Amino acid sequence: MKVDGVPYRTIWLADDGWSVEIIDQTQLPHAFVTLSLRTLEDVVGAIKDMQVRGAPLIGATAAYGLCLALKQDASDQALGEACQVLRQTRPTAVNLAWALDRVSEMVRPLPEGERVGAAYVTAAEICDEDIAICKAIGESGLPLIEAASAKKDQGPVNILTHCNAGWLATVDWGTALAPIYAAHDAGIGVHVWVEETRPRNQGAALTAWELGKHGVPHTVIADNAGGHLIQTGQVDLCITGTDRTAANGDVCNKIGTYLKALAAFDNGVPFYVGLPGPTIDWNMKSGASIPIEERDPREVTHARGVDDAGRTVEIRLTPEGSLAANPAFDVTPARLITGLITERGISAANEQGLKKLFEK
Amino acid sequence: MKVDGVPYRTIWLADDGWSVEIIDQTQLPHAFVTLSLRTLEDVVGAIKDMQVRGAPLIGATAAYGLCLALKQDASDQALGEACQVLRQTRPTAVNLAWALDRVSEMVRPLPEGERVGAAYVTAAEICDEDIAICKAIGESGLPLIEAASAKKDQGPVNILTHCNAGWLATVDWGTALAPIYAAHDAGIGVHVWVEETRPRNQGAALTAWELGKHGVPHTVIADNAGGHLIQTGQVDLCITGTDRTAANGDVCNKIGTYLKALAAFDNGVPFYVGLPGPTIDWNMKSGASIPIEERDPREVTHARGVDDAGRTVEIRLTPEGSLAANPAFDVTPARLITGLITERGISAANEQGLKKLFEK
Repeated sequence: MKVDGVPYRTIWLADDGWSVEIIDQTQLPHAFVTLSLRTLEDVVGAIKDMQVRGAPLIGATAAYGLCLALKQDASDQALGEACQVLRQTRPTAVNLAWALDRVSEMVRPLPEGERVGAAYVTAAEICDEDIAICKAIGESGLPLIEAASAKKDQGPVNILTHCNAGWLATVDWGTALAPIYAAHDAGIGVHVWVEETRPRNQGAALTAWELGKHGVPHTVIADNAGGHLIQTGQVDLCITGTDRTAANGDVCNKIGTYLKALAAFDNGVPFYVGLPGPTIDWNMKSGASIPIEERDPREVTHARGVDDAGRTVEIRLTPEGSLAANPAFDVTPARLITGLITERGISAANEQGLKKLFEK
Repeated sequence: MKVDGVPYRTIWLADDGWSVEIIDQTQLPHAFVTLSLRTLEDVVGAIKDMQVRGAPLIGATAAYGLCLALKQDASDQALGEACQVLRQTRPTAVNLAWALDRVSEMVRPLPEGERVGAAYVTAAEICDEDIAICKAIGESGLPLIEAASAKKDQGPVNILTHCNAGWLATVDWGTALAPIYAAHDAGIGVHVWVEETRPRNQGAALTAWELGKHGVPHTVIADNAGGHLIQTGQVDLCITGTDRTAANGDVCNKIGTYLKALAAFDNGVPFYVGLPGPTIDWNMKSGASIPIEERDPREVTHARGVDDAGRTVEIRLTPEGSLAANPAFDVTPARLITGLITERGISAANEQGLKKLFEK
């Protein structure tokens, strides 16, 4: 997507042909800063500190992490160690493991001298495929928004989303936001309710930023407000992303998603999840077994933004001495989900529906 | 309750016998500052800017607002105008109108020379009654926590609350927190999950502060996390407050309450509301007609706290140019509520139950 007229992906190779460039997403929306990752350690830090985040982008970045590791040492041992350290950066998103496995399986049979080149080719494939997948999710979801628009006498289609499942969470286009961009670009009136998504404010910081840059009308709300808007008829449909999808259609996404699915279900408002195939964990029978990342309590006790002078400041919100807990994801049971919008079409949120679409 | 060993109410008369002293709750938890209100305008500002907040405390403060207005001009016209301007400060809490009506009905039949004195007597009665009501709510709710404790093999009773319905929201003791203080003081192990309650963070700022000052174990969480904690068995019961209760038991409380009631219902976790009689609006048949206050979008686009040097700072969270919306309350339907904890006992959340307790 474009940033002030210049086309960007969220991850790309530098002119030197091997360093990995990313947008430092912790600086958004207040500053647009790109970073160069040159070592495995750089990549591990970028994922852990959420300079890159979003399940698909984490997968792509991890793939390039293996490239950088192999560039220093292409041995089996180095490959295994790099996989292990990358796998531990974030526990919930399944794309991470999927991307590491894919690169490893590709390079392990090769002589050491050919591994780096093959890894870079595979990482580039993962990125290109992610873009194709996200574009196809947009095309799958577009008819839903067209239909919602046709049903309305006036005004835009009001879509509620949580966290950031836009192009910043992927290599380009996004998952949950892909159908919204497709609808907007097709001239359909859309308006997005953007939940700020405490504690890290990916909605207020990233989703609002990327929608604004693309000219999509949107309004930021506190996470608490989504239920009220759904209850009072101000939301036509909800679309979120997912970090890991169980085989039965349960969806593990950013903490708070479950609450909005409950509200949508309680009021008969459709609740869809934008879902790239690689987020499906076929080994996970239900969402109950998905590991939930527990992050630093400081993300809850503090908030980060800019002051009146434009300086980045971190402020404490809680009394000194009060503890905080910070689970980063929750599980939305399949029974609350109207449908899964995938690159292969829309599926019911159950094993049968997913298998029908994704069986080779 | 005590603040560092000194007993406080949230509102009291100064030594001069007529100025009204309050705790400036916008400064908490970072600074404990008291303010002196000497005019109707002072009171209007304190309520609008939420230096005092919480339905019962708003009512008590408004009563003293009439005292200060009558002190300057005890005419019928001045009384009527003061009622009107105070009534418009916050639209949702019904205690505000209730307190204004009570003082007006008391003083209107009196000669002008006796009105100020009678108003001060009535305002003091409202405060004393509120304390008695809150203490009784604590006694009504205590057996629920005792029963929850008896059912547990080990560990404290985990109680989730939203916003601040503690002593800071009332004159003393609180509504939702009154049973928790009663249980803690009775030696029952309790632990409170404190939802931060964006956008104004009354949970993180006020509930955490007052629980900490009283020594009650608690953990602050993002509003998004409550559903996950309920879903994963980490919450034994929920207790919130209410700003206005409809005759059918629907409850209008701080935005986000509805979402937690949905999660509690979905998981069979009891959801109680601490409810002083004066928050019941018998004229309101259901919650759907309760006016929902829309507050300044800046509360959503910004957050306030202290920086590392202890300075109070307001930071912007959103991109420049992104709009925000800020509905301050939502309605929790009676069907999701396990019971209403009142000063006269626990009632089912329906008209029959409430009438049985509150019929004269």
